[in-house]
Amino acid sequence: MSSSPISSAGAAAPGIADIEAAARRIAGHAVLTPLLESPALNKLAGGRVLVKAEMLQRTGSFKFRGAYNAISQIPEAARAAGVVAFSSGNHAQGVAAAAQMMRMPAVIAMPKDAPAIKVGNTRGMGAEVMFFDREKDDREALGKQLVEKHRATLIPPYDHPHVIAGQGTVGLEIAAQAQAMGARPEAVLVPCGGGGLVAGTSLAIRAKLPGAAVYSAEPADFDDTARSLRSGQRERVAPGAKSFCDALLLPTPGVITFAINRATLAGGLAVTDDEVAQAMEAAFTHLKLVAEPGGAVALAAVLTRKFDARGKTVVVVMSGGNVDAATFAAALKRTVA
Amino acid sequence: MSSSPISSAGAAAPGIADIEAAARRIAGHAVLTPLLESPALNKLAGGRVLVKAEMLQRTGSFKFRGAYNAISQIPEAARAAGVVAFSSGNHAQGVAAAAQMMRMPAVIAMPKDAPAIKVGNTRGMGAEVMFFDREKDDREALGKQLVEKHRATLIPPYDHPHVIAGQGTVGLEIAAQAQAMGARPEAVLVPCGGGGLVAGTSLAIRAKLPGAAVYSAEPADFDDTARSLRSGQRERVAPGAKSFCDALLLPTPGVITFAINRATLAGGLAVTDDEVAQAMEAAFTHLKLVAEPGGAVALAAVLTRKFDARGKTVVVVMSGGNVDAATFAAALKRTVA
Repeated sequence: MSSSPISSAGAAAPGIADIEAAARRIAGHAVLTPLLESPALNKLAGGRVLVKAEMLQRTGSFKFRGAYNAISQIPEAARAAGVVAFSSGNHAQGVAAAAQMMRMPAVIAMPKDAPAIKVGNTRGMGAEVMFFDREKDDREALGKQLVEKHRATLIPPYDHPHVIAGQGTVGLEIAAQAQAMGARPEAVLVPCGGGGLVAGTSLAIRAKLPGAAVYSAEPADFDDTARSLRSGQRERVAPGAKSFCDALLLPTPGVITFAINRATLAGGLAVTDDEVAQAMEAAFTHLKLVAEPGGAVALAAVLTRKFDARGKTVVVVMSGGNVDAATFAAALKRTVA
Repeated sequence: MSSSPISSAGAAAPGIADIEAAARRIAGHAVLTPLLESPALNKLAGGRVLVKAEMLQRTGSFKFRGAYNAISQIPEAARAAGVVAFSSGNHAQGVAAAAQMMRMPAVIAMPKDAPAIKVGNTRGMGAEVMFFDREKDDREALGKQLVEKHRATLIPPYDHPHVIAGQGTVGLEIAAQAQAMGARPEAVLVPCGGGGLVAGTSLAIRAKLPGAAVYSAEPADFDDTARSLRSGQRERVAPGAKSFCDALLLPTPGVITFAINRATLAGGLAVTDDEVAQAMEAAFTHLKLVAEPGGAVALAAVLTRKFDARGKTVVVVMSGGNVDAATFAAALKRTVA
C-alpha cells in the first residue's frame, strides 16, 4: 500500500514523471501558451493575477494536450482503426486535431446542443460527428457502442491517466513561466468539469510549486466537485441544472480525477453565469482574449472575490475560447448595456 | 554622404543598434508578445500565417514600446516637467503607462471622437486628457502649445527616432520567434498609420531576416503610404475620407518614417472596412484574439489575398486590441449575420 494521499486512485493516477513525459510528447505540436498579466486586471483583483491563456492553444482549448498525449501512445497495430470520443465540444476538437496529425480516423459523439463553432471545427479537422442528447442518452454506453462498432480506441474526456497527464502539462508550464517572471504564486485556480485539467495541473503544481494552493472553479449549479471535496464522496449535479458554461456541464466528478483532486485541491469555488459573463467582458477589455463561458470561471472567482486575491499572486487558468459570436456579443452586453 | 538607401532620413533614422538598445530598455517592462499560428487560418490563407499578437502588449497595443523607449531617455533634469502627447488613443495609452511607470506627469491631447475605452484607459493610468477636433485642429500646433505651457517633453506618435526604434523591437522579436519555430518568413505585413511601426519593424527585419519582404497595410481611403511608395513623395489622404480603423486615420506619412519606408518596404496594401471586419471575425474565431479595426488590416490583406500568401510563410502583425464592445460586436455580426 502506497503512503501517497492519491493512493485511492491507484495505478491510474499519473505521477510527475508521466506529466513530464507528456510534455516531451506534445512539444512542438501544442502551443506553449503565454502566462499574461494586465495592470488593469491586477487593480480590479487587488493582487497580481497571472493568466494562463489556453484559448491560444491549438483547437482553442487545453484539450489538445491530453488528446495528443493519449493518442500518441496508441500502439501501431491499433492505429488504423482510429479513435472514438464523446464530448461536449472541446475534447472533440482536441481528439480530431490529434488524430488528424497522426493520420488516424476519428468518430466523435457530440451533444446535439453543442455550439455550432465546436461542431464545425470538429468536422473541419476531418472527424465524423454523431449527435446525442445531453439529458436523455448515456454517453458512456454510447461510447462503448461506438468502440465496438468501429473497433477503435476510446479516448475518454478526462477519466484516463494519459489524458490527465497531458492536461498536467499546463501546470508544468505555469511553474516554469511564473519562475521566469519572478513570481511566486500562492494559488492556482482552474476551471473544472470532469476534473481532468485541475487534476493534472494540481499534480504538476504540487511537484513544481509546492507553496501554491490549487482550487477548482465551477458554474454555480454544476458545483459537484466543490461539494464532493467537502463531503469526501462523488456528489451529483441536481436534475435540470442549467448554465451557459457548455464545456463544464458534467453530472459528477470522474473516478480517477476525484481520487486525485480530493488529495491535491485546497477547495472548490463556484460562480454564477452573470459573474462568468462579467469575467468574459473583463478578459475582452483588459486581456484582449476571447474566453468561452467555461473558460472564464476561474477568472470570475477572482473578480468576484469568491477567491480573495488581494495582496496575493494568483494564477488563473483560462481553459478555452470556443464560443459562438452571438453568445460572446451577448456576454459583452450583459455588463456593457 | 552615406551609401545607405535610408540616407534621406539622415541622422533621424535609427539603426539596428538603436533598435537592439531599445529592446534592452523595454525588457521586463513590455510583454514579449507571442507569435501565434492557427491551422484553420493557414487553410483560409493557403499558406503559413504567423500572427504577432501585439494586442497582448501592455496597454493593448504596440505603442508602449516606442513610448517607453523615448520616455526612458529623457534626461533626469527634464523628468519633473513630464511629457505631452497628441494621439488618437493607442499612443496616448502607451505614453500614459510609460510615464506612470517612470513616475512622470503626462498630458495627452486626444481627438474628441476617440473610443471611450482608450480615453478611459488613458485617464486610468493617471494622465490628464484634453480633447481636439480631428478635422479642424492642427495637432502639431496643439502639441507645441502644450509643450510650451507645461515645459514638458513632447513624445511624438511616430516621427521620432526613439519612437521608431522602440516599435522596431517588434521586428527583432518576430525574427527570433520565427527562427525558434523553424519558420522562414518570406513576407511581413504591418498595419500603417503614420508609419512608425512598419518603419521600425522593416529596419529590424532587413537586419535579421533579410530574405523577407515587408509591406505596409492601410485602410482603403487612408492608403497614403501605399500611394506615396508608388509616387516617391509623401501623398495626402483625400478630404472627408472615412474608416472605422480609428488608430490609422493620419493625413500623410511622417517625414522620417517615409524616408525609411521608401527604402525598406516592398509595397503598400489597402483594405476596406468590410474586409477589416471579416478579419476581426477571423481573429475572434480562429485565434481567440480581440483585434481593434486598425489592428486587423494586415490580416485582412492576407485573407482577401490582396497579398497572396498561398504556398508562402507570412508574418502578420496585429497591432492592437483596444476596441469598444459595441464596435466589436458589430464587426462580428457584419460577417456572421
